[in-house]
Amino acid sequence: MKGVKKRLYEVIFEADTKAGKWFDIILIVLILFSVIIVMIESDSRVIQHFEKWVYLTEWILTILFTIEYLLRIWVLDKPRKYIFSFYGVIDLLAILPSFIGLFLAGTQMLLVLRSLRLLRIFRVLKLTRYVKEASILWQALASGRNKIGVFLFTVLILITILGTVMYMIEKPVNEGFRSIPESIYWAVVTLTTVGYGDIAPITTLGKFVAGVIMITGYAIIAVPTGIVTSELAKEVIKKIPTNTQVCSECFKDNHDDDALHCKYCGGKLKDE
Amino acid sequence: MKGVKKRLYEVIFEADTKAGKWFDIILIVLILFSVIIVMIESDSRVIQHFEKWVYLTEWILTILFTIEYLLRIWVLDKPRKYIFSFYGVIDLLAILPSFIGLFLAGTQMLLVLRSLRLLRIFRVLKLTRYVKEASILWQALASGRNKIGVFLFTVLILITILGTVMYMIEKPVNEGFRSIPESIYWAVVTLTTVGYGDIAPITTLGKFVAGVIMITGYAIIAVPTGIVTSELAKEVIKKIPTNTQVCSECFKDNHDDDALHCKYCGGKLKDE
Amino acid sequence: MKGVKKRLYEVIFEADTKAGKWFDIILIVLILFSVIIVMIESDSRVIQHFEKWVYLTEWILTILFTIEYLLRIWVLDKPRKYIFSFYGVIDLLAILPSFIGLFLAGTQMLLVLRSLRLLRIFRVLKLTRYVKEASILWQALASGRNKIGVFLFTVLILITILGTVMYMIEKPVNEGFRSIPESIYWAVVTLTTVGYGDIAPITTLGKFVAGVIMITGYAIIAVPTGIVTSELAKEVIKKIPTNTQVCSECFKDNHDDDALHCKYCGGKLKDE
Amino acid sequence: MKGVKKRLYEVIFEADTKAGKWFDIILIVLILFSVIIVMIESDSRVIQHFEKWVYLTEWILTILFTIEYLLRIWVLDKPRKYIFSFYGVIDLLAILPSFIGLFLAGTQMLLVLRSLRLLRIFRVLKLTRYVKEASILWQALASGRNKIGVFLFTVLILITILGTVMYMIEKPVNEGFRSIPESIYWAVVTLTTVGYGDIAPITTLGKFVAGVIMITGYAIIAVPTGIVTSELAKEVIKKIPTNTQVCSECFKDNHDDDALHCKYCGGKLKDE
Repeated sequence: MKGVKKRLYEVIFEADTKAGKWFDIILIVLILFSVIIVMIESDSRVIQHFEKWVYLTEWILTILFTIEYLLRIWVLDKPRKYIFSFYGVIDLLAILPSFIGLFLAGTQMLLVLRSLRLLRIFRVLKLTRYVKEASILWQALASGRNKIGVFLFTVLILITILGTVMYMIEKPVNEGFRSIPESIYWAVVTLTTVGYGDIAPITTLGKFVAGVIMITGYAIIAVPTGIVTSELAKEVIKKIPTNTQVCSECFKDNHDDDALHCKYCGGKLKDE
Repeated sequence: MKGVKKRLYEVIFEADTKAGKWFDIILIVLILFSVIIVMIESDSRVIQHFEKWVYLTEWILTILFTIEYLLRIWVLDKPRKYIFSFYGVIDLLAILPSFIGLFLAGTQMLLVLRSLRLLRIFRVLKLTRYVKEASILWQALASGRNKIGVFLFTVLILITILGTVMYMIEKPVNEGFRSIPESIYWAVVTLTTVGYGDIAPITTLGKFVAGVIMITGYAIIAVPTGIVTSELAKEVIKKIPTNTQVCSECFKDNHDDDALHCKYCGGKLKDE
Repeated sequence: MKGVKKRLYEVIFEADTKAGKWFDIILIVLILFSVIIVMIESDSRVIQHFEKWVYLTEWILTILFTIEYLLRIWVLDKPRKYIFSFYGVIDLLAILPSFIGLFLAGTQMLLVLRSLRLLRIFRVLKLTRYVKEASILWQALASGRNKIGVFLFTVLILITILGTVMYMIEKPVNEGFRSIPESIYWAVVTLTTVGYGDIAPITTLGKFVAGVIMITGYAIIAVPTGIVTSELAKEVIKKIPTNTQVCSECFKDNHDDDALHCKYCGGKLKDE
Repeated sequence: MKGVKKRLYEVIFEADTKAGKWFDIILIVLILFSVIIVMIESDSRVIQHFEKWVYLTEWILTILFTIEYLLRIWVLDKPRKYIFSFYGVIDLLAILPSFIGLFLAGTQMLLVLRSLRLLRIFRVLKLTRYVKEASILWQALASGRNKIGVFLFTVLILITILGTVMYMIEKPVNEGFRSIPESIYWAVVTLTTVGYGDIAPITTLGKFVAGVIMITGYAIIAVPTGIVTSELAKEVIKKIPTNTQVCSECFKDNHDDDALHCKYCGGKLKDE
C-alpha cells in the first residue's frame, strides 16, 4: 500500500518521471476543456443549444476532478497543508459548485458560483516552471518590488487627492462625480490612460484640471516602465557572455571572443 | 515648561524617539480614518444610514486634529514658518470646515468644503522617508527634470497646434469641437491615449488627421519613458557592486578591478 | 526559351538587377493603387460617384495581376512551393474575387470578398529588406521572443481570472458582463488601457476591483516594454564604436582600449 | 540707413545682444497674448461678453505683427527666402485673416481662418534653443529616426490589414465599420490604446479578433519606447563624467573622482 501511495505521489505532485509529466499534461487539457465548458455555460444565448451535452461533460469533469482531489489528499501524509493551501482551496472550489447544485436550486446564483471552476486555470501557470525566461522576468519584477511598491503608494495618494479635487470642481453639475470614491475611480481610469468615458469632466475648469492630470501623468506613467526596464536591462547585461580564456604566457584574462593573440603580451592564445 | 515644550517638539516633529514614531503612526491611522469618514460623507446614498455615527466621529476627529494643530504651534518658537508652510495650511484646512459648519448652513457647499480634509493624506507620504527606494526614484525623476520640462513644453505647443487644426476641420459639423480650448482638451485626451470618446472626430478628414496624431504621437509618448528609464538605469547600473578588495593599510574598499595601489593612501593592494 | 525564363525569374523574384528593381517598384505602385481602389469601393457613399472609373481600373489591375501571377508560376521550375506559400495564396486571393464576381451576384458578400485584395499590401513589407534598421528591430524582438511568450501566456491566464471575477461581481446588474467571454473581452480592453467604455463596471465593488486591475496592471504593462528595450539596448550598446587603433602589421582594428598587442596577429600596437 | 538696417537685423533675427533678447521676450509675450485672444474668440459662449475688447486688442495685435512682418522683410537683403520659409508663411498667416475680414463677411468661415493666427505659437519653440537638454532629446530622436521610420511603416501596413479583416467581420452587422478607411481608423484608435469607443466590435468573432489585436499589439507598442529609450540611454551613458586626471609619475589616467593616489603606481595625485 505504501509503495502505491509513494508512486502516486510522484505522479501527482512531481514532474520528473514520464508518468508525472503525462499526468500534468492530461490535467491541463482537462482544465482547459472545463474552462471552455464554463464559458459556454455562462453565455445564456449559446447554452440553450448544447444544454444536454454541457450538463453531461460537466458531470464527467466534476467526477474526474473529485477523484483527483481525493487522491491528492490520500497520497499525502499530512494533507492539511495541501487542503488549506492556495491550490488546495482552488481545487475544492472547482468541484463544490456541481455538488451544491444538486441541493440548491437558485439558478442565477449557481451560474456565478460555477464559474469559480475557472480559477483552476491558475494550475496552467505551473507550465512556466519549464521555461527559463519566466524566472528572469520574475527576478526583474522581484528586484524592482520595493520601488514598484513606493510608486504604487505614491500613485494611491495622488489619486485620492486628484479625485477629491475633481469632486469639488465637478460635483455641483456633473452626475458622474457624485461621491469621492466615484471621483477616485475616475482618477484611476484617467491616470492609467484607460479612459472609459463613462465619467468625464464637463465644466471648463474640470476639463482644464483633467488635462493637467493627463499631461503630468505622463512622467508618472513612465516610472514603472523605467523600473522594470532598468531591472531587466541589468539581468540582460549580466548575461552578456564574457570570455574566460587566460593567456598561457602572462596569465591575464578578459580577452575578446575573436582574439587569437594575448592583447597584453602578444602571446598566442590556445584554442579551447 | 521649556523641557515639556522640547520633549513635545521631539514627539511631534521628529521620528527618532520611540514616542515620536508612535505619534506618527497614530496620526496616520487617524488621518486614514478621517479619509474614510469624508468618503462616506460624500456619498449621499450611503451617508443617510450612518449619519449620526459619522457626525460624532467627525467631531471627535476635528477636536483631536485641533489639539494637534494648537500643540504644533505652541511647541515651535517661531510658529509663523509652520503656519504658512504647505503642511501647516493643509492641517488648518482639515479642521476649519467643521467649525465653519457651525455658523454656515449651505449643506451643498459645505460638503465640498469638508472634503478639503482629505488633503491631509499628503502627510502619509512622509512614511516614504523610511524607504530607501523612494530617494532613488526621486533622484531619477529630479535628474531628468530638465528633459521632462522641455518635453512637456514641446507637447504643450504641439497640443495647441493640433487642437487648432482639428477645430478648423471639425468645427462646422461637430458639436464637440465648438471652441479651441475644447479642441485642445480633445488633443490632450487623444495624445495621452486616454481617449474618453466624449469628443471624437466625425468628418473623414478629421478622422484621418486624428489617426496621424495618434500614430506619430507614438514616438512622442516614448520620450518621457525613455527619459525616466535612462536616468533610472544610470542609478541602477551605478549600484551594481563591483570590486570587494579592501586596502590592508587604510581599510577602505570600492577599488577598481585593475587597481594595484589603494587610491586613498597609495598602499599596495594584495593579489587575491 | 530557357534563357527568357531565367531572365524573367531574375526580374520577378530578385532585386539585384536594374530591371528587377524597376519591377518591384512598379508592382508596389500598382498594389498601393489597388489598395486605394478597394478603399473607395468599400465606402458606399463615395463609390456611387466614381462607379464606372472604379470598375474599369479594377479590371485593368486584375488583368495585370493575373499576368504577373501566371508569369510567376511559369518561370518557376517547381511552382507548387510558390502556389502554396504565404505570398502565393495572397497573390491568388488578390485576383480571384473579380473573376468570381462574373458568375456570382451577391453584392454584399462580394464587396467583403473583394477587400481580400488589400492583403497584397504585405508585399510592400519586402521593401524593408533594403533597410538595415529593420533587421536590428527584428533581432531585438526575436531575441526577446521567449520572454514575450511567457509574458503573453501569463497575461492570458490573468485576463481569464479577472474576467471571471468581474463576471461574478457585475453579472446580476450589468448587461455588459452577461457572459464570461464578454467579461474577458472587457478585461483585455481594460488591461491594455484601450478602454472603449462600451462595457464598464457599474457596481461599487466592480469599480473598486476594476481600479485595482488598472493600477496593478501598470507593473504588467511595463514588462513588454522592458523586454524590448533591454534587448534593443543590448544591440545599440554593442554598436557603440570604441577604439580606432589599427594594427600596423595586419591592419585590423576593433582593439580594446587597454590592448598593447594586436589580438589577431600579436604585433605590438603603437601608442597614439 | 544701412547702419539702422543692420542694427534692426541684429535685434529682430538674432538673440546675442540685450536688445535682441528683449525683442524675443516681448514678441513671445505678444504671441501668447494673441493666442489667448484667439481662444476666447473661438468660444461663442465667452466672446459675447467681451466682444468690444477682443475686437480692439485683435486690431492692436494685428498692427504690431504687421509692423514686425514688414520690418523683417525690410531689414533683409534678400527677403524672398524668409517670405517663403516656414516661419515667414506663418507670420503672414497670422496677420492676413484680420485684413481679409475687412472685405469678406462670412463670419463662420472667418472665425476658422482667424485661428490660423494660433500657429504663430511655433515661434515660442525657439525658446528651447537656450536649453541644452532639448538638443539631447532631439539627438536621441534623430539617431533613432530610421528605426522609428521602419516601425511606423510596419504599423501602417499592419493597421491596413487589421482594419480590412475587421471590416470583413463586422461590416454586415455593425454601422461603425461601414467602410475600410473607417475600419482602419478604428484599428489606429485601438492599436494606439486610445480607444474612443465611438466604433467598437459587436460580433463575438470581432471581439475575439479585437482582443488578439490589443494583446499582440503590446509587443508592438513597446518598440518605439524601446528605440527612444536605448538611444537616450546611449546619450546619458556617454555623458557620465570621467576623470581626466593623469598621474604625474606613471602618466596613466582613468582615475576615480575620489582617488588621492594613483591606482597603478601608488604615486600621489595632484589637486586640480
